[in-house]
Amino acid sequence: MATTATHEMSDTPTTRHGAHAVPVAPSRGRLRPLGLYEVRLEGGFWGRRQHVNAAATLRHVEEWLERSGWLGNFDAAVQGRLPSARRGREFSDSEVYKLLEAMAWEQARQPDDDLASRFDAIVARIAAAQEPDGYLNTMFGRPGQAPRWSNLEWGHELYCTGHLVQAAVARARGGHPDDRLVMIARRAADLVCDVFGRDGRESVPGHPEIEMALVELFRMTGDGRYLEQAALFLKRRGRHILDDSEFGRSYYQDDVPIREAAVFRGHAVRATYLAAGAVDLADATGDAELLDAITAQWQRTVARRTYITGGMGAHHRDEAFGEDFVLPPDRSYSETCAGIGSVMLAHRLLLAHGDSRFADLIERTLFNVVCTSPAHDGRAFFYANTLHERRPGTPAPLDEASPRASSAVRAPWFAVSCCPTNVARTFASLAAYIATADADGVQIHQYASASISTVLDQGRQVEIKVETAYPHDGVVRIRSHAKQPSTWTLSLRIPAWADGATLEVDGVPSTVRPGTATVTRRWQEHDELVLRLPMTPRFVHPDPRIDAVRGCVAVERGPEVLCVESIDLGEAEALDEIHVDPGIPPVMEGSRVIASGWHAPAADDSWPYGPSPSTARGTPTAIPMVPYHDWGNRGPSAMRVWIPTG
Amino acid sequence: MATTATHEMSDTPTTRHGAHAVPVAPSRGRLRPLGLYEVRLEGGFWGRRQHVNAAATLRHVEEWLERSGWLGNFDAAVQGRLPSARRGREFSDSEVYKLLEAMAWEQARQPDDDLASRFDAIVARIAAAQEPDGYLNTMFGRPGQAPRWSNLEWGHELYCTGHLVQAAVARARGGHPDDRLVMIARRAADLVCDVFGRDGRESVPGHPEIEMALVELFRMTGDGRYLEQAALFLKRRGRHILDDSEFGRSYYQDDVPIREAAVFRGHAVRATYLAAGAVDLADATGDAELLDAITAQWQRTVARRTYITGGMGAHHRDEAFGEDFVLPPDRSYSETCAGIGSVMLAHRLLLAHGDSRFADLIERTLFNVVCTSPAHDGRAFFYANTLHERRPGTPAPLDEASPRASSAVRAPWFAVSCCPTNVARTFASLAAYIATADADGVQIHQYASASISTVLDQGRQVEIKVETAYPHDGVVRIRSHAKQPSTWTLSLRIPAWADGATLEVDGVPSTVRPGTATVTRRWQEHDELVLRLPMTPRFVHPDPRIDAVRGCVAVERGPEVLCVESIDLGEAEALDEIHVDPGIPPVMEGSRVIASGWHAPAADDSWPYGPSPSTARGTPTAIPMVPYHDWGNRGPSAMRVWIPTG
Repeated sequence: MATTATHEMSDTPTTRHGAHAVPVAPSRGRLRPLGLYEVRLEGGFWGRRQHVNAAATLRHVEEWLERSGWLGNFDAAVQGRLPSARRGREFSDSEVYKLLEAMAWEQARQPDDDLASRFDAIVARIAAAQEPDGYLNTMFGRPGQAPRWSNLEWGHELYCTGHLVQAAVARARGGHPDDRLVMIARRAADLVCDVFGRDGRESVPGHPEIEMALVELFRMTGDGRYLEQAALFLKRRGRHILDDSEFGRSYYQDDVPIREAAVFRGHAVRATYLAAGAVDLADATGDAELLDAITAQWQRTVARRTYITGGMGAHHRDEAFGEDFVLPPDRSYSETCAGIGSVMLAHRLLLAHGDSRFADLIERTLFNVVCTSPAHDGRAFFYANTLHERRPGTPAPLDEASPRASSAVRAPWFAVSCCPTNVARTFASLAAYIATADADGVQIHQYASASISTVLDQGRQVEIKVETAYPHDGVVRIRSHAKQPSTWTLSLRIPAWADGATLEVDGVPSTVRPGTATVTRRWQEHDELVLRLPMTPRFVHPDPRIDAVRGCVAVERGPEVLCVESIDLGEAEALDEIHVDPGIPPVMEGSRVIASGWHAPAADDSWPYGPSPSTARGTPTAIPMVPYHDWGNRGPSAMRVWIPTG
Repeated sequence: MATTATHEMSDTPTTRHGAHAVPVAPSRGRLRPLGLYEVRLEGGFWGRRQHVNAAATLRHVEEWLERSGWLGNFDAAVQGRLPSARRGREFSDSEVYKLLEAMAWEQARQPDDDLASRFDAIVARIAAAQEPDGYLNTMFGRPGQAPRWSNLEWGHELYCTGHLVQAAVARARGGHPDDRLVMIARRAADLVCDVFGRDGRESVPGHPEIEMALVELFRMTGDGRYLEQAALFLKRRGRHILDDSEFGRSYYQDDVPIREAAVFRGHAVRATYLAAGAVDLADATGDAELLDAITAQWQRTVARRTYITGGMGAHHRDEAFGEDFVLPPDRSYSETCAGIGSVMLAHRLLLAHGDSRFADLIERTLFNVVCTSPAHDGRAFFYANTLHERRPGTPAPLDEASPRASSAVRAPWFAVSCCPTNVARTFASLAAYIATADADGVQIHQYASASISTVLDQGRQVEIKVETAYPHDGVVRIRSHAKQPSTWTLSLRIPAWADGATLEVDGVPSTVRPGTATVTRRWQEHDELVLRLPMTPRFVHPDPRIDAVRGCVAVERGPEVLCVESIDLGEAEALDEIHVDPGIPPVMEGSRVIASGWHAPAADDSWPYGPSPSTARGTPTAIPMVPYHDWGNRGPSAMRVWIPTG
């Protein structure tokens, strides 16, 4: 495996070609996102992951797209070998586009000739397959294939087009506004507007995605037709336009108009992508009512339908949200892509409202869902992210795609392989989630070693460096490097869990409360703040309405949810037999968190329901805990996040 | 709806045409089943259900089979209108056969001219569709259809043939050994033996069923070829002959050879049907090793993978068993057909071993799974049987098939409608599960108002009458009516839960312990025993390894599992907020069971995980409970079996 990008830092340009390298560019809202030219990750927890993404995952994904034939589908289209030569599911084109998006961000972050030529080569193959009227999909429309747009429920044509457009937007904002990919995407989007526009076919896609893509394409091009099309798709939705399915119309959010819904429901990726598109539309059109509706749905979903990890979607059967408080840890689907959808949505809400609660969920979800998916080497992934695995899985073959999304081990690729490409594009663009700006100054939402540089109005230059070993420890040093002093406000998110955080200004620490801490001053070069977040491990108790974890506690440390792996207990069965003592707080021993409890082997009965409650406490035992996102990296293991108390 | 059978009793013939009207006729084993000519239900809990089955369900099922076009598929086959005119899924033929089996048992139980002519009319339509070589399936083999046997994984051809054979066996044992249906089934079975025999195609069906059917056909005809074919199917299974699927090969038990498995796994109906076939084969061939293997698997499954109701199968996604102790009440699939499969299996194990634990599970499953499925009127059904429904469902349209198997309300019919026909054939043959005989005497396993008459060796005539309001109360009166005195042993199952049961013999009560109580005497006419089973409601605690119900108790009374319905609490949300006090035993108030506890409305937080455990107890409240099998009969309701203790 060749390393395709080096990680040495060059001087950071603040913007290139006047573009902002951001996935989302709202036109109003509280905060302006700082993109890849303004924020650079520099080592640390997230920098290392971004490095692995660049050095391993992008190539890994590209190789699997070739090997699986999903890239070859475009060649087969050109060569007239479809449908017989087609490989993969109906949405396989989108994985190619998501790789292109990841490559586009990676090039914006760190130009690289090899990556550039691989990117161009893929774009050329796609370009060749586009039809004269702009249609581009390897699954439909040819002799022997179903007609175009004939299966909006399940065909994923508009979903694929949406990802094509998002890749093109990334490319344009990465400094290539006239790139071939951009032209391809515009022609494909134009056709969508022709077919599904005001006077066109009155329908919606089974899988939302194109809505946010079209708004971004509008923002990028200024062409209002794309915005109008996004508005049409969102307005039509929820009116029973799609056929009913065995999962019900809520599966694709066609059950209730988007403004009338109370909570996210149905397929979790569909639900979060749709909501993200709705926030984009609300921003672009100034539709406060729509923004309020989505914000309220988000709030209820976070309060009632979200795992402790930030994971969304409880059902395996339909990859869907359960009812309120239905959050079984052992059957948590918590799809990686739904976590990414949730981050995309919360990011948009953060930009719109500026509230730290949105950044809180982004942090929680990045650390405990998105980061859990890839293995340490960036070449194997969880698709679903269970919070409880009773038995160690079988090691996944490194050269086989997994037919099953819910395995207990990470797999290199899947029959449905949306998650690896989604992780790739998210990690490549991760810098865009760190900080924002407004008229008063700069806001840091996520703590990572990074340099941040931007220009506020009146030419106020902001250049700061963040140094931290977070989440290994809670010390975050923030230093100004701008040679020209200027007055602005630095806002720091104090996470909701960070009770007892302190902020040291000019050597004087003071307590800061969860929410936002601000420092307004005339910044001089070398001015330094030190934020100290409390990293003592802590017990977390669930709402009593979450039936599935009644009588259990979890342990968190900083932003990380912890777990117990059976590999640390000896045999896997021991994981079924440990109980934690909630009266003894967990402690750090070296870099390890240890909880105290008992090991009480259960007696085997012929019938597991009886007249007496179980009261055995067993032998006292230490329970070593590791970050949940690390689990499964030391070989197959049973694992649990929620530990019974007795 | 015409009443198709009256419920007045006529004199009970002990046998007709020398046949035993039993679904299973083992050639060895501890106990001989008493069939429909030897046991008659006479009112009471089960007699009423059998009456509703005869008076309403059989006609209901027949109407839906017509309406759905599944019966019409046979006509379409004859008229050359297939495949275009075909309706229903690949297994729809089997529903017609299961109706025929139910009608056959019903006629054996209670001859009825109208039913007889309807039965013959259906058989005639099926007969016309059978091909010259015996092949009979409306889904395969015609121009435009997939070839015969081309999709053994999912095609269900052998499954359908198995149900055809079971219907034919019922018909033959119901006194019509030369019936047209018997001839049809034999020709179909002969073709199976030709195609899949020793020198034939070495494969297995994706859905077991034909194994037990072939053993029964052997028992009925004496033709060893059917037994050999059953043996071949069972021997080949577990050797990865079937293609892998997204659910894994364990889904159809093709992962591990049947003798080597440790526990039931995969699709629960497939697993129980397969095991039932294996017990049949073990009996017919005297294979003690095979019987022991299945018995051990059953024991482990009952101890670790069975719901308190007796329900089997936790997963919705693949209708499959979960891992050990994975028994979430709110996602319990507990398919009605899996309950019936479990009853069929436990009945076979009971006949083989004679142990009361098998009859215990039959009782539990009949009362709490099988009986839960049909509505009181016999015209709507649960397919899945959840143990916890958080919100009242929407009333099901009475004239629409439900696309969804896991609804919170009973539906008249389903897109996959295996359960209504399975309930129909089980209730029609229910008398066969009540009692058995051996050389020493008669064993009563299930308590129901019934007359039992059989002849033991040396011409000892047994004629007894059982009178009971069980499970409304626990008094069971058993009286001998044989005019000719004879000496034999009456064995009574004392249920595992029946701590403190008493048996009164000649007016003298004595305590009997769970297991089996026996009375050996020279029985005179009017001799009477009175068994008194303790019907005080009781708390039941789960094994601590069942994560999903930790911190909860259930309430049982007699053989019935009880539940709380929100319709008794006011609003549905109250069901999320009640806690039971495990220190105060539940009591009877009139005919109602009442538990004591608290109602503690939960506070809404923006994030449902926090530093403090919930301790609120709320206001004391009475919690009215109803039999689980009755739930949902008073209109949509939320419901739970397991109630939190605090």
